Amino acid sequence: MSQSFVPVPAGSDFPLENLPYAVFSTENNTVHRICVAIGEHVLDLKAVSQLYPLQVQKSLQAETLNELMGLDFEAWDVVRTQTQKLLSKGSELDQNVDLKAVSIVSQSEIKLHLPAQIGDYTDFYSSIHHATNVGIMFRGPDNALMPNWRHLPVGYHGRASSVVVSGTPILRPLGQTFPDGAEKPVFGACRLLDFELEMAFFIGGKGNQLGEPIRVDEAWKNVFGFTLMNDWSARDIQKWEYVPLGPFTAKNLGTTISPWVVPTAALKPFLLDNFPQEPEVLPYLRQSIPFNFDINLEVSLKPSDQNESLISKSNFKHLYWTPLQQIAHHTVTGCNLRPGDLMASGTISGETPDSYGSLLELCWKGTKTVELPGGKTRKFLQDFDEVIIRGHCEKNGLRIGFGECVGQVLPAHPVPQ
Amino acid sequence: MSQSFVPVPAGSDFPLENLPYAVFSTENNTVHRICVAIGEHVLDLKAVSQLYPLQVQKSLQAETLNELMGLDFEAWDVVRTQTQKLLSKGSELDQNVDLKAVSIVSQSEIKLHLPAQIGDYTDFYSSIHHATNVGIMFRGPDNALMPNWRHLPVGYHGRASSVVVSGTPILRPLGQTFPDGAEKPVFGACRLLDFELEMAFFIGGKGNQLGEPIRVDEAWKNVFGFTLMNDWSARDIQKWEYVPLGPFTAKNLGTTISPWVVPTAALKPFLLDNFPQEPEVLPYLRQSIPFNFDINLEVSLKPSDQNESLISKSNFKHLYWTPLQQIAHHTVTGCNLRPGDLMASGTISGETPDSYGSLLELCWKGTKTVELPGGKTRKFLQDFDEVIIRGHCEKNGLRIGFGECVGQVLPAHPVPQ
Repeated sequence: MSQSFVPVPAGSDFPLENLPYAVFSTENNTVHRICVAIGEHVLDLKAVSQLYPLQVQKSLQAETLNELMGLDFEAWDVVRTQTQKLLSKGSELDQNVDLKAVSIVSQSEIKLHLPAQIGDYTDFYSSIHHATNVGIMFRGPDNALMPNWRHLPVGYHGRASSVVVSGTPILRPLGQTFPDGAEKPVFGACRLLDFELEMAFFIGGKGNQLGEPIRVDEAWKNVFGFTLMNDWSARDIQKWEYVPLGPFTAKNLGTTISPWVVPTAALKPFLLDNFPQEPEVLPYLRQSIPFNFDINLEVSLKPSDQNESLISKSNFKHLYWTPLQQIAHHTVTGCNLRPGDLMASGTISGETPDSYGSLLELCWKGTKTVELPGGKTRKFLQDFDEVIIRGHCEKNGLRIGFGECVGQVLPAHPVPQ
Repeated sequence: MSQSFVPVPAGSDFPLENLPYAVFSTENNTVHRICVAIGEHVLDLKAVSQLYPLQVQKSLQAETLNELMGLDFEAWDVVRTQTQKLLSKGSELDQNVDLKAVSIVSQSEIKLHLPAQIGDYTDFYSSIHHATNVGIMFRGPDNALMPNWRHLPVGYHGRASSVVVSGTPILRPLGQTFPDGAEKPVFGACRLLDFELEMAFFIGGKGNQLGEPIRVDEAWKNVFGFTLMNDWSARDIQKWEYVPLGPFTAKNLGTTISPWVVPTAALKPFLLDNFPQEPEVLPYLRQSIPFNFDINLEVSLKPSDQNESLISKSNFKHLYWTPLQQIAHHTVTGCNLRPGDLMASGTISGETPDSYGSLLELCWKGTKTVELPGGKTRKFLQDFDEVIIRGHCEKNGLRIGFGECVGQVLPAHPVPQ
């Protein structure tokens, strides 16, 4: 690949081979615009939209990525190829000093927003290690995985309105719990606030009509790109409320995603074989193409009065179910997907204890602690703790990064009297 | 109340005291517009928007009800009062022959659409008789209600994209089930397709910010109006998939709502005391104002080759949890609501077997049958069956109706080879 005229520092998440999309604004221009990241800058795609083929220009002038997502994969390739060309040394843009001056913006000067209007948000439960860990903790080792777990990608509908962009503070929620030993439920601040290390992808393409399932081997056409996610979870609230219809107020207190949407095309060099599945799945879930990725994931925790510490290292490749199987299953009874819908993986835990994707697992239901510098420990999140999720792929000197998914826990409101 | 210049036949669902909102188009004008029903006509609110105060005009010219829903209850009153005035005999509109000719449209000439862009859809589980029935069937009489059920309005996030307007056909879904006696799961057409008699309300007002709960006694300001709902359910798919995260593909095959949104103000004459709750709920759910309604509900089933038969009579008043408690609980951990969000009641069953709101209950898990004319019977829905839900309030000669929520079951796609 040619070099960009925008400097890309060594170790940057955002080389010319990445070009993740985001929605940004600046102090001087508060209109939301689409951009791609390049090194420590962004390229304002609205400002340069006239340099793209006519049929994609409108999507680049929009205030969210929904319209671009709603084009097809061939149009995404057209945009990506042209963006790479424009950002290369000696390009039409490189030679246009005035246009460069307005369209290349330092990331230090931008505000990032949610990349899309999320129509629906779905959360899967696709890490076998996570599902097994939770099962052992709550039902014992003999019944750790539910009988359906290896036969279908278990998932549930989440709350789209409470998905927020990285940097949005998360209030410790008030809610209803039934503490061990109590005689009746109580109301108060969540005591067991947790993070969940997840990744998510945005649905693209025209989507499907109600009643028309998407076949597993066609579903790649609907995967626009990936983000990092922290699915904040109030464990004590969840435990009491979730039977029989699933998590509700324990999850809709806020779900954070990273602002950068890494295009699926940028992840191709990091394709892996799919996770081996045993027993064999039903035909509608049998996938003949690989769609698993080697994405290193890290979680760091930063108490208010000290530097961050790495507390978990995981990898996207631990997921048992692929995004294509998730789409095939999601639509099998006819559910319609729309561009901008968000599908999350569920907590991504690896096999070893240092790769678990939640404090629930890292501290094994509160029986252990996570050690931080200066003798500090954690079993669950404390007020003012910041959780930072990062992800990147790396191979043969190429690094494709996801940036950061950050959120700080703020103290709960006082209980109303 | 004065009389309308538009004829309102005796027994009509839509007198001047109702004025439910909808979104419609006509063959000659396919632009979606907002209207209210009056008798067998509608008033095109876009066509007469200039007769309303300036601050509400824009909301009446929109293509969905979201903008009107997003105003506050005082603005809703302004619109409603002015609409009643305009539709009264001798009004400014009555005297304007040209404007009347374009703004009063026969319901036989209109196509009705979803009334709002639904940001998020939540389904509660608020009928104590329904929850008890299902509990007895699946867990026995001793543990019929889950321990949390009387302490909080159990609910879950549903799928917004698959909410459709009355009249949309519903395909029998293909999906994964684990039949009794089978050795492994199988794929095929749903065998136990059911309806669920529900009502739903649209969220209005400015909504709330993430992290800012809505208090139970303030929540009435966020209830814009009510519709009928059929929450189609694939019971065999649901049984296998729903553990531990709740219903997913068994429900997102389609959810039908009636096109008419009856304003909360029109239901005021039918206010009832709230359902008695025992034990007393936590303070955040204690409601000091009545917000329960006497709404008669009926379900009819129409096989393809005969007339419809009434198979259930229920009433909104059987709901244990009120809409205000649902809102207070939904937002207690900070979840933000937005105008146009839809909140459903869950299946509304009464105490007696003829008031059960699903075939699952009416046929008690397939151990009984519903009798139809000509010796026909049903345990679950058959292909080409049409389910018609109707609702109305009636008191002292005033009838406020909801129209119809209709859907026909079409045969499943063939199983892909």
